[in-house]
Amino acid sequence: MSSTEVKLSRLLGLAQKFNNFYLTGFHKNDIRPFLVEGRQVGLIKSDVFKQLLKYPQVFCIRDCDYTKQGLVELNPAFRDYHERTEQLEKVLLDLRRDGLFSALQGWRDECFEVKSEHKALLKMERAATPLFGVRKYGVDINGYVRHPQHGLCIWLQQRSNNKETWPGKWDNMVGGGLSVGYGIKETAIKEAAEEASIPSDLVKNLVSAGCVSFFFESDQGLFPNTEYVFDLELPVDFIPHNADGEVQAFELLPANKCMERVFTADFKTTSAPVVIDFLIRHGYITAENELNFTQIVELLHVPLQSLYTYKTRLEQKIQQQQQQHQAQPPQVALPKDDSNCNCSDMPIRSLENGHSKKENA
Amino acid sequence: MSSTEVKLSRLLGLAQKFNNFYLTGFHKNDIRPFLVEGRQVGLIKSDVFKQLLKYPQVFCIRDCDYTKQGLVELNPAFRDYHERTEQLEKVLLDLRRDGLFSALQGWRDECFEVKSEHKALLKMERAATPLFGVRKYGVDINGYVRHPQHGLCIWLQQRSNNKETWPGKWDNMVGGGLSVGYGIKETAIKEAAEEASIPSDLVKNLVSAGCVSFFFESDQGLFPNTEYVFDLELPVDFIPHNADGEVQAFELLPANKCMERVFTADFKTTSAPVVIDFLIRHGYITAENELNFTQIVELLHVPLQSLYTYKTRLEQKIQQQQQQHQAQPPQVALPKDDSNCNCSDMPIRSLENGHSKKENA
Repeated sequence: MSSTEVKLSRLLGLAQKFNNFYLTGFHKNDIRPFLVEGRQVGLIKSDVFKQLLKYPQVFCIRDCDYTKQGLVELNPAFRDYHERTEQLEKVLLDLRRDGLFSALQGWRDECFEVKSEHKALLKMERAATPLFGVRKYGVDINGYVRHPQHGLCIWLQQRSNNKETWPGKWDNMVGGGLSVGYGIKETAIKEAAEEASIPSDLVKNLVSAGCVSFFFESDQGLFPNTEYVFDLELPVDFIPHNADGEVQAFELLPANKCMERVFTADFKTTSAPVVIDFLIRHGYITAENELNFTQIVELLHVPLQSLYTYKTRLEQKIQQQQQQHQAQPPQVALPKDDSNCNCSDMPIRSLENGHSKKENA
Repeated sequence: MSSTEVKLSRLLGLAQKFNNFYLTGFHKNDIRPFLVEGRQVGLIKSDVFKQLLKYPQVFCIRDCDYTKQGLVELNPAFRDYHERTEQLEKVLLDLRRDGLFSALQGWRDECFEVKSEHKALLKMERAATPLFGVRKYGVDINGYVRHPQHGLCIWLQQRSNNKETWPGKWDNMVGGGLSVGYGIKETAIKEAAEEASIPSDLVKNLVSAGCVSFFFESDQGLFPNTEYVFDLELPVDFIPHNADGEVQAFELLPANKCMERVFTADFKTTSAPVVIDFLIRHGYITAENELNFTQIVELLHVPLQSLYTYKTRLEQKIQQQQQQHQAQPPQVALPKDDSNCNCSDMPIRSLENGHSKKENA
């Protein structure tokens, strides 16, 4: 048997689809690390990069040790969370007015936190995160029923036709992004009430069951998404009702029909990982019935937390010194906070300047 | 708050420990791809490499596009599964007699299959796989009880003091390697009977729940392990008994005490991922109580299936031609099977010859 004779299973094909950027995007030489305070927090593609060049007071373009395209850093002269947020938002509002990026037409006045190693660096309008390849976090609830006749059944929602993203597509029963100021379980409980009117005596049975991570790309931008997943077993007679106008229908499907729905073009691609993970954890998709089982499980948990590793040399030096400082009595003076602003040391250059290796700190 | 002030959680520390090779091993310039039939199936460290140089009729040492250390290929003149297995085993028996590798002192006369993209290429004595960095597969059963007083409780086994690997250490209730000729669920059921005397009316409740993957290194060698995990809820009054002499004790522990046991030096490091995954899937370890939750979930599913990507140029060409052949009427003659033997075209060179880029096919 030759390896090329092995049939690519539909499930592996789908796992590759929602990881299209993870599997092929890094080879295209079209991306630049996006840095805030010397640490990488995202990736910027050429179409966005070209627009950011218009704001040299906000974005510094530098050489990069790893990509000949260079990197983009939010001006390190911005002193704190508040100033970084404000300066970036001005650019985003400007870009939104220009109407060049369809992602920004879905502006929600809802912010996601941009972090590096647990440190919150700024907040960013949710609709803009795909333009910067910033990691997004959300919650999803698998609402399921152990049906006396049909066995394991799963509730799905059909998104409202008015939603900015994925209108009319089938989706998990309950899901939502993690906005600034809300906790993870708190968001799950809030969304359960808003999207499906799940009463508190049922929602108390929510079970945290892990997370899935994948890296999808669409014409809207980049989606390095992590979804915290919760399972919620529901009574056979419970029927969800939408309360916030974002859902047009709910449907309870036996596991096999649910899986078929996920394979259709009517299902939101970026919600498929949650359903597949659920069906794996509950013994419906197994190593016995899916040839590519291990590969699929790995593609449900791609290493997003270790993808963004680029740090400026100055930031590396500061961290090394801090580590030494913690390990033993300080022998070297730590650089002051504002020494991280190295904008003035480095000429701002456009991509057209080409690649020339140069210390950036 | 500086990032270096964030406390490394014990759980993240443990996840880094059982992924010590995944996180740092690739940077050491101490490893070479191991190829069989033109496809990478493992990694070979310098201590093993030096011994393999003594068998030039079995191992070909070549230049490699990615590492200056070169690569090791099982002689492509060996025609089939049987001949490859036989030739390699002769070397392994020889190395075992020399007594240089402690891993081989645990010889079991039990073989693991060496595969690339679902194609079985040869079988290898289980004890030898760490020397070649060959991916290992096993099964693990989480035996648990919903205790009326103590809540979620987990059965652990203490390994016999006579076991070659991890003697006397605490471990999952049931576990075993996937040997040639046995299926995944079949292995789980067999081990459940042998290790814990679980009767068939209980074992029928086994639920497949996914797999964990990690890449550990010890003085025994390399462990790129994938464990298929099964959950088995047991009645409160069931007590496991060992039937094969490989277990010296069983103990039922509440989830918190089980977690503490996993952190001790008395627990088998490479079994920790299975327990952590179980406690995550069952809502005991959550994003609310573990700061590094997403990072830990990713470290329980590292991408082993996409790590071994090296192919010889000839193999790449054959695969391309086969793909064209499948997609359209054949326009080019496919190379005959034995044209994959390119040993005679390439001088066999020792590492000492240094690095010189050369086409190897």
